[in-house]
Amino acid sequence: MNMKKMKKYAVPGFVAGAVEAAIKKPGRLDMALIFSEVPAVSAAVFTTNKVKAAPVVLDQLVVRKPKARAIVANSGNANACTGPKGMEDALTTAHLAAEGLGIDTSDVFVASTGVIGLPLPMERVKAGVSKLPDSVRPDGWEDAARAIMTTDTFMKIYGVKADVGGSDVTIVGIAKGSGMINPDMATMLSFVATNAAIDKPALKSALKEAADASFNCITVDGDSSTNDTAIVLANGVAYNQPIKKGTPEYGQFRDALADVLLALAKMIVKDGEGATKFVEVVVEGAKDYADAKKAAKSIANSPLVKTALFAADPNWGRIICAAGYSGAEMDPDASEIWFDKVCMVKCGVGMGINAEMKALAVMKKPEYRLTVKLGAGNASATVYTTDFSYEYVKINAEYRS
Amino acid sequence: MNMKKMKKYAVPGFVAGAVEAAIKKPGRLDMALIFSEVPAVSAAVFTTNKVKAAPVVLDQLVVRKPKARAIVANSGNANACTGPKGMEDALTTAHLAAEGLGIDTSDVFVASTGVIGLPLPMERVKAGVSKLPDSVRPDGWEDAARAIMTTDTFMKIYGVKADVGGSDVTIVGIAKGSGMINPDMATMLSFVATNAAIDKPALKSALKEAADASFNCITVDGDSSTNDTAIVLANGVAYNQPIKKGTPEYGQFRDALADVLLALAKMIVKDGEGATKFVEVVVEGAKDYADAKKAAKSIANSPLVKTALFAADPNWGRIICAAGYSGAEMDPDASEIWFDKVCMVKCGVGMGINAEMKALAVMKKPEYRLTVKLGAGNASATVYTTDFSYEYVKINAEYRS
Repeated sequence: MNMKKMKKYAVPGFVAGAVEAAIKKPGRLDMALIFSEVPAVSAAVFTTNKVKAAPVVLDQLVVRKPKARAIVANSGNANACTGPKGMEDALTTAHLAAEGLGIDTSDVFVASTGVIGLPLPMERVKAGVSKLPDSVRPDGWEDAARAIMTTDTFMKIYGVKADVGGSDVTIVGIAKGSGMINPDMATMLSFVATNAAIDKPALKSALKEAADASFNCITVDGDSSTNDTAIVLANGVAYNQPIKKGTPEYGQFRDALADVLLALAKMIVKDGEGATKFVEVVVEGAKDYADAKKAAKSIANSPLVKTALFAADPNWGRIICAAGYSGAEMDPDASEIWFDKVCMVKCGVGMGINAEMKALAVMKKPEYRLTVKLGAGNASATVYTTDFSYEYVKINAEYRS
Repeated sequence: MNMKKMKKYAVPGFVAGAVEAAIKKPGRLDMALIFSEVPAVSAAVFTTNKVKAAPVVLDQLVVRKPKARAIVANSGNANACTGPKGMEDALTTAHLAAEGLGIDTSDVFVASTGVIGLPLPMERVKAGVSKLPDSVRPDGWEDAARAIMTTDTFMKIYGVKADVGGSDVTIVGIAKGSGMINPDMATMLSFVATNAAIDKPALKSALKEAADASFNCITVDGDSSTNDTAIVLANGVAYNQPIKKGTPEYGQFRDALADVLLALAKMIVKDGEGATKFVEVVVEGAKDYADAKKAAKSIANSPLVKTALFAADPNWGRIICAAGYSGAEMDPDASEIWFDKVCMVKCGVGMGINAEMKALAVMKKPEYRLTVKLGAGNASATVYTTDFSYEYVKINAEYRS
């Protein structure tokens, strides 16, 4: 594919920016705005949690409209489990942003992340929103990326320029992650802007496919949150032939989008709370894809596996055990476990102390691949995960601000 | 019910004992024998993990026979993922025990717990088995309970005398638990002996019902192991009218058995690896029992909830979030959360700082009840769990012996 990673982030027809609204501790950006100078086609995916934060409920209505213009996000407070007041606050935020930008309230997506159950500090949010329109500029993406961070230790931003049917298309995405990162859209926000011209069904489908291959393949601790949201805005100022499903251009666009989302997803995992390892869990030999994913998630979410990853302990019993209770079909006597290229288990039996010493060397690396073969078919799936460290417990026992 | 907790453990017609076989570190009992002086009716429940240790596979055959006589168990090595050699070793163990006791090999249950993937040290196991018959005595239950411990910090034993249809019936159980404790029979062994006369279908059914209300309601870290086994032997020397299903005596016996298993299950949770809290998670207002249990397990297994329990942080957002992603039906706007008698959330909204201070006081206690009402029906379920502490990570990062 003809695609190039960007170094400086900007998307034609979009501006982005951020302000300090004092929702988080002083000195940190905590409100972001992304604005398209022309109406943009939108698509979004949301948390599957039965408990949805107010902004998620609002955005599920906004995304139904043919076009949208803006995304307003705050960190420090999730506006979740806040009852009718929470919905009123989300609406007020959208309304004030729309006024400042001279657009319709229903053209504004709202997103929040942070502590659950406390009402938004609306005086500070209102003051922040009023300053946002002045903060935006074409190269304001890094500020926006910083403003949505919570326990994240680095900002997450990625962009590509791709050739889509002969036109230069730009895609830039930002994300926040850290705790509660799980397949099926966990506590994470991601906002993506592109100048591609694309119709709404094609954008929706491309986002779904790209999210399935990225955000839905990561897991830090198995929880999935009340606020998870990924939104794509496509404003068409690349003036390419509008992309439709089933065309070669659709595939090119989707692959470029998937590239951006996967890069963001990997950053989210690497920044998992207290993470010291980045492990690609590959399950092969499954009966079908669903089984492969089930087993991979079970391994990646097992606290016993995760503490062994932390300790660089090739305790493959815990791995095979987690595959065994996942519910996936497997033939224990045909199962295999590999750490990168080191075979640790064959025919369900350990390969002994030499293999273990080699596996240990692999596990001391900050990044490696753990492959588990179930011996029950030909399907495979990949999940990206981290270890559980002392630091994970510390961060989550102490986080509340 | 007419039932009395025992102080000194003995079951008429049974002897128990233990020896040091040097499978674990020196100075610790690591092989146990339970022996019935007459043939006993048996029932057992096993792990649902697809990967089953060799002794589990063997025991699934032994339990089909009308009668059995003995249980031989070792700690320090799980004899799991050990291939055909593992099955041969389990059989050899049963065979040697049978020889020493003058009974049939097929009358012997075998159980192992410890590290997965290493072959049993058979020379030491053989020497241990040969000494076992001399170790048993009527009051040897505490030795047996000690011999099956792995990372357990205290032995688990409980016994009752109950009136079953006018006859005095004794039930004594021992267990080992610690890591990997999960509903659906997790890494735990439990052996129960009773002098009740009971037919096999009734014993099977009583064990299943009692296990569902005890071992299947506990969770430490969500993993379920390759070796989980609970076995009951009933030798009939109480000479009561043999208990049959559907009689009042059946109910009396089942309740007494459930009492023993629940006491053992609670000890297992309290001894969860690194546990500092014992929390009874009660889900009410669920559509049905399955939903209630699903939500309770989801809350009890969430690493974010468990770290909040450790920190005594009434971060109810994590609790409602875990209920929300459990898949159980719920009406977030009707949900409630209680810590003992402190209402923290009503109608899906937090009750404010005063309630939080009171909840915090409850959470500082070593034991309390967390009640979550889903607002979706009338079913309820209870799960017993612990927190995640630094110690949990430490134990599991370092355990390998």
